[in-house]
Amino acid sequence: MIIGEPHTQKPIRWAMVGGGRGSQIGYVHRSAALRDRVFDLVAGAFDIDPERGRAFGVELGLAADRCYSDYRALFASEKARPDGAQAVSIATPNNTHFEIAKAALEHGIHVICEKPLCFTTREAEALQRLAGERRKVVGVTYGYAGHQMIEQARAMVAAGELGEIRLVNMQFAHGFHNEAVEEKSAATKWRVDPKFAGPSYVLGDLGTHPLYIAETIVPALKIKRLLCARQSFIKSRAPLEDNAVTLMEYDSGAFGTAWCSAVNAGAMHSQKVRVVGSKASVEWWDERPNQLLFEVQGEPGRVLERGMPYLHGAALVDDRIGAGHAEGLFEAWANLYYRFAIAMEATDRGDDRRLASLRYPGVAAGVEGVRWVENCVRSADAGGVWVDYR
Amino acid sequence: MIIGEPHTQKPIRWAMVGGGRGSQIGYVHRSAALRDRVFDLVAGAFDIDPERGRAFGVELGLAADRCYSDYRALFASEKARPDGAQAVSIATPNNTHFEIAKAALEHGIHVICEKPLCFTTREAEALQRLAGERRKVVGVTYGYAGHQMIEQARAMVAAGELGEIRLVNMQFAHGFHNEAVEEKSAATKWRVDPKFAGPSYVLGDLGTHPLYIAETIVPALKIKRLLCARQSFIKSRAPLEDNAVTLMEYDSGAFGTAWCSAVNAGAMHSQKVRVVGSKASVEWWDERPNQLLFEVQGEPGRVLERGMPYLHGAALVDDRIGAGHAEGLFEAWANLYYRFAIAMEATDRGDDRRLASLRYPGVAAGVEGVRWVENCVRSADAGGVWVDYR
Amino acid sequence: MIIGEPHTQKPIRWAMVGGGRGSQIGYVHRSAALRDRVFDLVAGAFDIDPERGRAFGVELGLAADRCYSDYRALFASEKARPDGAQAVSIATPNNTHFEIAKAALEHGIHVICEKPLCFTTREAEALQRLAGERRKVVGVTYGYAGHQMIEQARAMVAAGELGEIRLVNMQFAHGFHNEAVEEKSAATKWRVDPKFAGPSYVLGDLGTHPLYIAETIVPALKIKRLLCARQSFIKSRAPLEDNAVTLMEYDSGAFGTAWCSAVNAGAMHSQKVRVVGSKASVEWWDERPNQLLFEVQGEPGRVLERGMPYLHGAALVDDRIGAGHAEGLFEAWANLYYRFAIAMEATDRGDDRRLASLRYPGVAAGVEGVRWVENCVRSADAGGVWVDYR
Amino acid sequence: MIIGEPHTQKPIRWAMVGGGRGSQIGYVHRSAALRDRVFDLVAGAFDIDPERGRAFGVELGLAADRCYSDYRALFASEKARPDGAQAVSIATPNNTHFEIAKAALEHGIHVICEKPLCFTTREAEALQRLAGERRKVVGVTYGYAGHQMIEQARAMVAAGELGEIRLVNMQFAHGFHNEAVEEKSAATKWRVDPKFAGPSYVLGDLGTHPLYIAETIVPALKIKRLLCARQSFIKSRAPLEDNAVTLMEYDSGAFGTAWCSAVNAGAMHSQKVRVVGSKASVEWWDERPNQLLFEVQGEPGRVLERGMPYLHGAALVDDRIGAGHAEGLFEAWANLYYRFAIAMEATDRGDDRRLASLRYPGVAAGVEGVRWVENCVRSADAGGVWVDYR
Repeated sequence: MIIGEPHTQKPIRWAMVGGGRGSQIGYVHRSAALRDRVFDLVAGAFDIDPERGRAFGVELGLAADRCYSDYRALFASEKARPDGAQAVSIATPNNTHFEIAKAALEHGIHVICEKPLCFTTREAEALQRLAGERRKVVGVTYGYAGHQMIEQARAMVAAGELGEIRLVNMQFAHGFHNEAVEEKSAATKWRVDPKFAGPSYVLGDLGTHPLYIAETIVPALKIKRLLCARQSFIKSRAPLEDNAVTLMEYDSGAFGTAWCSAVNAGAMHSQKVRVVGSKASVEWWDERPNQLLFEVQGEPGRVLERGMPYLHGAALVDDRIGAGHAEGLFEAWANLYYRFAIAMEATDRGDDRRLASLRYPGVAAGVEGVRWVENCVRSADAGGVWVDYR
Repeated sequence: MIIGEPHTQKPIRWAMVGGGRGSQIGYVHRSAALRDRVFDLVAGAFDIDPERGRAFGVELGLAADRCYSDYRALFASEKARPDGAQAVSIATPNNTHFEIAKAALEHGIHVICEKPLCFTTREAEALQRLAGERRKVVGVTYGYAGHQMIEQARAMVAAGELGEIRLVNMQFAHGFHNEAVEEKSAATKWRVDPKFAGPSYVLGDLGTHPLYIAETIVPALKIKRLLCARQSFIKSRAPLEDNAVTLMEYDSGAFGTAWCSAVNAGAMHSQKVRVVGSKASVEWWDERPNQLLFEVQGEPGRVLERGMPYLHGAALVDDRIGAGHAEGLFEAWANLYYRFAIAMEATDRGDDRRLASLRYPGVAAGVEGVRWVENCVRSADAGGVWVDYR
Repeated sequence: MIIGEPHTQKPIRWAMVGGGRGSQIGYVHRSAALRDRVFDLVAGAFDIDPERGRAFGVELGLAADRCYSDYRALFASEKARPDGAQAVSIATPNNTHFEIAKAALEHGIHVICEKPLCFTTREAEALQRLAGERRKVVGVTYGYAGHQMIEQARAMVAAGELGEIRLVNMQFAHGFHNEAVEEKSAATKWRVDPKFAGPSYVLGDLGTHPLYIAETIVPALKIKRLLCARQSFIKSRAPLEDNAVTLMEYDSGAFGTAWCSAVNAGAMHSQKVRVVGSKASVEWWDERPNQLLFEVQGEPGRVLERGMPYLHGAALVDDRIGAGHAEGLFEAWANLYYRFAIAMEATDRGDDRRLASLRYPGVAAGVEGVRWVENCVRSADAGGVWVDYR
Repeated sequence: MIIGEPHTQKPIRWAMVGGGRGSQIGYVHRSAALRDRVFDLVAGAFDIDPERGRAFGVELGLAADRCYSDYRALFASEKARPDGAQAVSIATPNNTHFEIAKAALEHGIHVICEKPLCFTTREAEALQRLAGERRKVVGVTYGYAGHQMIEQARAMVAAGELGEIRLVNMQFAHGFHNEAVEEKSAATKWRVDPKFAGPSYVLGDLGTHPLYIAETIVPALKIKRLLCARQSFIKSRAPLEDNAVTLMEYDSGAFGTAWCSAVNAGAMHSQKVRVVGSKASVEWWDERPNQLLFEVQGEPGRVLERGMPYLHGAALVDDRIGAGHAEGLFEAWANLYYRFAIAMEATDRGDDRRLASLRYPGVAAGVEGVRWVENCVRSADAGGVWVDYR
């Protein structure tokens, strides 16, 4: 149970790029990082407008001279300080992630990055190599994956409670962009512009979330080939899709599907992952994150509840409040952030054993998300054909 | 509201082939046919064992001499009587449907047939032609489609309440055959034997149900091409599949998916149809058939309830009891059967206007089910590739 | 499993009083009685207007001379025939139940009666005595109680799966009469008129249903004293209540509550019974009658499904179709009716053993409903005070 | 939307009494207070063991000399400092709340107190008077009441969307203490000991939560008289109850019920408040706090979702993340805490207008909770009789 006991020796000195005034996601990052005193915010380049960024940072309690005009200045100056930032979170538009993450790593700074890490597998692997060379952590904010019931599902699969895994059904299919809201909303506009969003809209923006959750629950599964059909129901979004269906064959013979949509009218998130084994299934839904449906063939369906003693130990360590109470997305993010901190500390002291015991969305998960989107787009653009996963 | 007022001038004289002692589906047919005095059971060839069949028929109140040893004897003898059977229901294994239905039509007897009507589109179209020539009804027992909330969804789509239809997601994915239960259960054994089951297992046995429901809700949609991946997780079932995913492109640009499974461990039926329009979605689930989820983008989700005055008129005519009470599958079947009776009566008197106003799963729906399975199998057997729908 | 095999040696000759043209409940009675060939409809006094009643009966297939102008004529004539009616169902307004049931019993005719059996415990006990003297069955149509999951709950309690029973929470709280709909609806008008409805509205009309279900699930509980507060939110309904809350102390120390309402705006039925034991609870909801919630303290909540092999045997015998399919209220009524038939047959042949093994709402259940309402009204009219149950 | 913009001019200097190492509720308080920089933790008397308390405070970043051995020392020393604590949160056992709150107010320190504020109405009113005299805030942590959908329900009632309020049904009925867990658990032990818990167990510990929520949603309702029946199913808990049912008559003619239980085996929280009006009902459930069920008679039931633009403005101001995402109890607490801070600031500068616009559980809500429990106990101890509310 997390009730304020320190996770790390001391808080990690932490900076942000992006996430300034008016940014919702910036708030989410800070809430998570500062939740359990694993990070101290010491510097930032919060805004494209340096003045506004500085004012915002000062308001957050930063020294004015550690509120920088851009990430280059931030990394250079902080690097030079004995008390400089040890880690940075990147909360900028997608098209800038690569260069900022790369620069951070080159300065020996740990990275926490919004997904997608970048636009191509090639770039992603470059970051992965760089992180390896510099021995730095790259954490990717697949925020939903911090929920404890994901750990429970993972532990159940590992313990064989589902039998051999046969099917993995993923979906993240909301309806908020059923009309061309981007004509009015700046927040949506960049998401459907390839220049800023990259090669996909819903595949990358939505699909990579349940993809990572599925990978977490069933780490053994490796995609052999996939097929993706994508559509742009709002025509002006083409070539970016607002709906997509992906089929996946895994090495093991298991089969997977992923439905990503922003035009599923009337739905809220509809982010669900269902894993079907030869004996039983589990299903998780991000709108009711404290529950996990567990269905054993031939037995009554069960609803597992966060915080209950019948769960696996791994699903209990992150609880902040007893069963029956609702935890939410902020706790899930905080669960990731404290792992990032532990990973950074362990990395810095070369504690590979600690690292091996720690599950979090690291650079490999970031690479995998980019790779999956790339394969989906390759399939879709070839007419929705099967492509070998590479 | 249906409360015993007659639907037809008089009950139609009705026979059964199959559905004898111990048959659950035979009971369902009789419950539906005899529910509202639209049919009178007058004859039968209930069993492969003539003696047992006769005893069963007599127990049901039939004259012993109208309990026949097989369908040939039944059709020949009944044809010769002035009070002979006017209609027959076929509740035998799949591989016999074609020949029995054909023989019935050739004797000028209306047909009610379990799905699949037959194994090939060619056969199905032959039945369709024959039914046209003889001016006889062929009703197909897509039983779930008799639920009133399906009519409601259809009326909502017709009224434009969903906007332009973009997505149709179908599934019928239970878990009852996650193991090789056919080794012990005769009822399952024939379903996975191509000789009796035809070219598919779950596609035909399960998938055609939500397919017909989707066609009912959105009649305008025509499949342009489709792609099907099928698997046999219980290896001994190959070449028949116990899991399949089908993707469909419609002429209109809409996109569809269908998940059929008998290995979805722990699930009950999981038969759901979700239709997504540009403005709103509807979703129906056969385990809660008295409800329809209606989700308008930007408004609170609504749960529509059977029997409530706010529904379209077409969804209210079949109610047998007020809102709040649970109707079930027997009512849905009875709704189909009384339509079959009305259609038979109208056909016999050449009342095309009445026929045009009557929605029920007729021979075209039966043909479409066979065609869809055939196209799915063709795609799957070619490696899961897109095939033009034909 | 019920699939048409006969429950009785032969169908019982059956008549109806009331339930004529336009009657919904009449249709429900006939659907239940005729479902599985346990009754044959042979006579009726369907309507206060004899001509209309006769026409209706003939339409149902009755001989015109067995369509009577009233119940007196029916009982007298049928009694005189060798093939006369052996049983009668009473589907008339509440205020006539007593005299008709009494007359039927005096003529040696089994009775099936809508609840309430009558208006006073004194009358009810008179019927009970009479039924005993004449050795005739009085079945009471607490229709919901025919659902199989009620049997499951009963079997679980009997097997000790809940531990010692502590709490019983009942409710039947719909919203359909939140306004004075009786000003327009004849069907509602008599329900709020003491002359026709008796001493209560929602307590008798609604509350007796979950009361009987609770008695069925936990037969050992005996009410020691109770307290009832009732309100007439639509003032013109006074002294009849449209909302009531009853508290009950049982002999065993268990505690019960019952909420009855017709003004629970926006609710459908909301008929629920929750039984809480020292180890576990069960909860049943009539809008999802195929499910039973089973919650063991310290374990994940379970949803039990009708038809599944893990249920107690008593919960499986009445299935008409496999698990996953929706059965509804018509099946529940049919389950009661076939028990009534078995009880009548066993009573007539003096088979006490068969009778002892048969659970159905008989005259004692009818008496208990009347008694409970009477005690509630006595408490409420005294200002909502505790009254000893008598 | 709350995304880090300051609520107050500057953070309020804040201390804690209790809530030290190992305390879950202490963590909840700190998470809420420190969430949005409305409070700065400057001092504490965290533990009955001064050394342990000091170590804990230092770990939290406090100066060692501001970690006090008890609340007396804390108040005296902080009072003497120019930068002394302006507010204190009290997270100690129930029996100490009164004396600590009183001392804080006497030192001119704002109070945030766990419920119950104290054990008697007399004491509660004394605190209320004292707070008035010293012009200090007393905030009471009815944490669930911070959820935004409570504000939505309140705004809907105020706007007349439910019509005239008729019924208020409250419940908080978990099952975690179905056995005598207090024999092993210290955390439960004091709750069932009158010396520490006061005159009730579940009425005070649980029932005051939905009571305050109901008061928030329908502020106009005033209890005229009530009746309470309470039971101790675990006998050793007597005279404290582990189950209770309270009936309430309101001045307006509305009727209320409250079910409080710790023996509702298998249930999680089951904290629900349903408010029924003449036109519509709303229902809120603390396990799905982001939703509000809205049922208008004669219309489909609706599920309102946190964060959606169709909500009243008051329900949107506290969002920290967009609709579809799960917020949880920590956000609800933070919503209260930032109101406490605003109230303190406004109180200190005498801004009555700001105060009037601010809804939060203040001293009056604390008094009301104590009063309600007192009345319930008075009724129950007199045998479950109606008592005038006083």
